[in-house]
Amino acid sequence: MLPEWVTQKCPEISAVHREAALARQAQLTKPAGALGRLEQLAVELAGLQATEQPRAARVPIIVFAGDHGIVAQGVSAYPQGVTIAMMANFASGGAAISVLARELGSNLEVVDAGTLAQEAIAGVVTDKPRQGTRDFSVEAALTPTELAFAFEAGQRAVARAAAGRPDLLIFGEMGIGNTTTSAAIAASLLGISAEEIAGSGTGVDAAGRAHKAGVIDAAIARHGVAGALPEQILCAVGGLEIAAICGAIIAAAQARIPVLIDGFIVSVAALAAVRLNPSCHSFLLPSHQSAEQGHRLVLRALNVQPLISLDLRLGEGSGAAIALPLVRLACSLHNGMATFAQANVPDRPA
Amino acid sequence: MLPEWVTQKCPEISAVHREAALARQAQLTKPAGALGRLEQLAVELAGLQATEQPRAARVPIIVFAGDHGIVAQGVSAYPQGVTIAMMANFASGGAAISVLARELGSNLEVVDAGTLAQEAIAGVVTDKPRQGTRDFSVEAALTPTELAFAFEAGQRAVARAAAGRPDLLIFGEMGIGNTTTSAAIAASLLGISAEEIAGSGTGVDAAGRAHKAGVIDAAIARHGVAGALPEQILCAVGGLEIAAICGAIIAAAQARIPVLIDGFIVSVAALAAVRLNPSCHSFLLPSHQSAEQGHRLVLRALNVQPLISLDLRLGEGSGAAIALPLVRLACSLHNGMATFAQANVPDRPA
Repeated sequence: MLPEWVTQKCPEISAVHREAALARQAQLTKPAGALGRLEQLAVELAGLQATEQPRAARVPIIVFAGDHGIVAQGVSAYPQGVTIAMMANFASGGAAISVLARELGSNLEVVDAGTLAQEAIAGVVTDKPRQGTRDFSVEAALTPTELAFAFEAGQRAVARAAAGRPDLLIFGEMGIGNTTTSAAIAASLLGISAEEIAGSGTGVDAAGRAHKAGVIDAAIARHGVAGALPEQILCAVGGLEIAAICGAIIAAAQARIPVLIDGFIVSVAALAAVRLNPSCHSFLLPSHQSAEQGHRLVLRALNVQPLISLDLRLGEGSGAAIALPLVRLACSLHNGMATFAQANVPDRPA
Repeated sequence: MLPEWVTQKCPEISAVHREAALARQAQLTKPAGALGRLEQLAVELAGLQATEQPRAARVPIIVFAGDHGIVAQGVSAYPQGVTIAMMANFASGGAAISVLARELGSNLEVVDAGTLAQEAIAGVVTDKPRQGTRDFSVEAALTPTELAFAFEAGQRAVARAAAGRPDLLIFGEMGIGNTTTSAAIAASLLGISAEEIAGSGTGVDAAGRAHKAGVIDAAIARHGVAGALPEQILCAVGGLEIAAICGAIIAAAQARIPVLIDGFIVSVAALAAVRLNPSCHSFLLPSHQSAEQGHRLVLRALNVQPLISLDLRLGEGSGAAIALPLVRLACSLHNGMATFAQANVPDRPA
């Protein structure tokens, strides 16, 4: 069973602040609506943060890593050891997300939520119930107790970040094999075949993708989780880093902290989070649409429109980090522009 | 006649630096191609800047303003006085582009390239051959001498900015009526009807848009400039700020400074620049696709793919400024990520 807090209701959007933000946008020195999506974003954030001055200044990034037993079935283009090596790379500053965090002034925390690492890695928080998931082509990936542990690991990470009073949060992931796990979760949640949603991941070819889809469909059939409850799906074919992100999203929303949703894997965690606790939905801010085939479907199921679509397919939280400056500029424009009255600019007649 | 420098050849892309950048991208700790458009952007910039470390740190913004005689035909939703009022708003820091320039650490220069202002405005560089263009529904907007002056005003602005050794340049525009002027130029350059390209501008309705298209088509027929030479088109239906931007784009490319192209109006200036001097084409970096109807057609004619599409339709250089952080992050990732060898991460087998 999942912990009780998972289904507790998230705060409401502040209608007062949302309306005030809309009214302010109409007075700024620009044609009405001329800043398009950035206007909507500022208005939405004002409502979510319950403030007159929406902010995206303090945005910590938390990357959760996990290993996947399903890798034994040859579903990934990279060797499994890359998960641990990349965790170390995150911590030592050489990975894409490390560079992005530095540029954005974001604190980067790396959580080993379930990799095969047997020893602690410098600069990485270890918070895992086991080393890697089981191979879901032959047995359930996780027990209910392990799943619950991962949700709480996500909640703990949010609690650590919340001490710094973040304006938003970005969650990222790392785990060789985790596009396979995510496609299995998404296919089960959406009741569709893996063929529709399994992509190339880090770079398998067409034959590799067909193999991956076959492995997923067989597993969904074996566990009987097509259209099952999210917790059943997450135990059967889930991943520890994905479950941790699912818990983290819900915990963030419950603490009134909007989450800038990264690519395919984080979006699948978000979809599971929304299925478990629909009240977290409004706290999900879209960032990008990745090149990974299934992402479009998952974003559609989440009913969110991405801000950017730059053929990214890296994960790590990188897509959300890359979109963050757009959110920051939306806030700066909202808070910093002059009104027609202040600037003595004639508004349109009538 | 346009000044002789306008058609002088721009520098070549450095193939050596481009190849080196491609090779570096293949060694960074990420699946090949996983940073999508940002990889291409860094590689392209390395070739344009002829450097191993592409940069987008110093990016001054120059906004050119002009007034348009065609406003007498009722083509705009806003009164003509807004052009001058907004120039003052740019200079005093209240406009969208002022806020963006502050946030991005960009120097903002405002050039009165041809507004109706009779006196100098504090913080604005005045560099114009006349106050506003003539109403092109009844006569040619500009004489050849006035057009040449505007091109040189653009070149002078680039020369001022070049002293600060910019990595890129952003040009913006302000001018009530200038979507009408731009649509007239684009329709003439592309040999299409105004109906295909005239949009809502600052916010005219469907009837207003039809009127605008009718005014443009009649003017193109009156002046006989469908498919004419760019300089003939710019005299017949052009604008002073648009001609200045056209000159500025060519001058920047000649000085090996890439230009991040803003929305509809700046893109039309870029299209005219490419027609006058095809060698400037490689120095045009796309930023966004605006909500203005004709922008898609002009971007297609320029053969560039926008980075973002956020329903912006403000002008001022704001779309390019909003896209700038993406270019900066592309450079940071290219320059700052570790290689597989440095991070001791196993690259994919084979």
